[in-house]
Amino acid sequence: MTDPRKPNPARRSERSRRAILDAARELISELGYAKVSIESIAARAGVGKQTIYRWWPSKGAVIFDSFLALSEGEEGMRLPDTGDLEADLKTVMRATVAEFADPAFEAPIRALNMEIIGDPDLAALYRDKLARPVDEAKKARLRSGQQAGQLAADADLDLVLEVLYAPLHQRWLHRSGPLTQEYADALVETTLRAFSP
Amino acid sequence: MTDPRKPNPARRSERSRRAILDAARELISELGYAKVSIESIAARAGVGKQTIYRWWPSKGAVIFDSFLALSEGEEGMRLPDTGDLEADLKTVMRATVAEFADPAFEAPIRALNMEIIGDPDLAALYRDKLARPVDEAKKARLRSGQQAGQLAADADLDLVLEVLYAPLHQRWLHRSGPLTQEYADALVETTLRAFSP
Repeated sequence: MTDPRKPNPARRSERSRRAILDAARELISELGYAKVSIESIAARAGVGKQTIYRWWPSKGAVIFDSFLALSEGEEGMRLPDTGDLEADLKTVMRATVAEFADPAFEAPIRALNMEIIGDPDLAALYRDKLARPVDEAKKARLRSGQQAGQLAADADLDLVLEVLYAPLHQRWLHRSGPLTQEYADALVETTLRAFSP
Repeated sequence: MTDPRKPNPARRSERSRRAILDAARELISELGYAKVSIESIAARAGVGKQTIYRWWPSKGAVIFDSFLALSEGEEGMRLPDTGDLEADLKTVMRATVAEFADPAFEAPIRALNMEIIGDPDLAALYRDKLARPVDEAKKARLRSGQQAGQLAADADLDLVLEVLYAPLHQRWLHRSGPLTQEYADALVETTLRAFSP
């Protein structure tokens, strides 16, 4: 058993790591990528610069990991599967719309999007490390809907995900319309009509 | 009749105006909004700074007009109307996909998108001055399709446009898939299935 009176270096390291990643994400939301420095991340996190350089080779690496940390625990992420594809997608899309409508949540994702749009290498890294694993979890749920006869067996699942998510993504990025539960539901219904069996 | 030997001040002004707008658009693609200055636009256009200040109050105003100039002649823009909504939308979407696949065309639009995403005021200006007039032209074509029984009479036309264009927009911004004629056709077919009468 761990003696609670003794300092635990592993736990302290984990605390520092989390503080650094939180600081990186906060600063990129507040200042934008170009103005964030290793120094400012260290100061916000309350650690020395050397602590950051011990774990990460560059500013880009810290910032990218700070976004990866957002989806930690989503490894092996699964969508709800009650047997009703429409109901399950509505649950997921309503939660997603609520996140994008929340200023605290959306600010760092917006900052990351601006970087990705301007930087093809970062875009590729984003696709491989962040987008693809999440997309695979979504496709697994769509496949079970195909087996249940709730989605066309020959539907192109990449296109299904684009039709479901891209309108929300664009509306959020351009602030071109309200992000509501009704909108989440409308996207699910539209997508299922387009790819009905 | 105009004497061709005499200088024509109106024509010279128009040439300078076009040179300034072209320079602004080129520079924003090359450098990004933050690094473009009135001085650099003037130098690229081969005019004096005062010429720019005579016509525009600020850098933002010049740059915005440079994008508006892209859609000049689209005032009273109309989509083709052969009576076949699917064929007409495929014509339009194939042309749009080809534009986004063209590096010379897409670079300034990408730079503008990054500005819009980060700046709510610019996003509102973009919607009012650039996006809305074009969307209205597209909706006019959709309405004639509704009258012809080729699109559900109660379809939400804003949602129809989002489902048609947002997947392309996202795929282009994130460079997440090929921009091909087949993709253009698939988006039209998917959208018309989703909103069939």
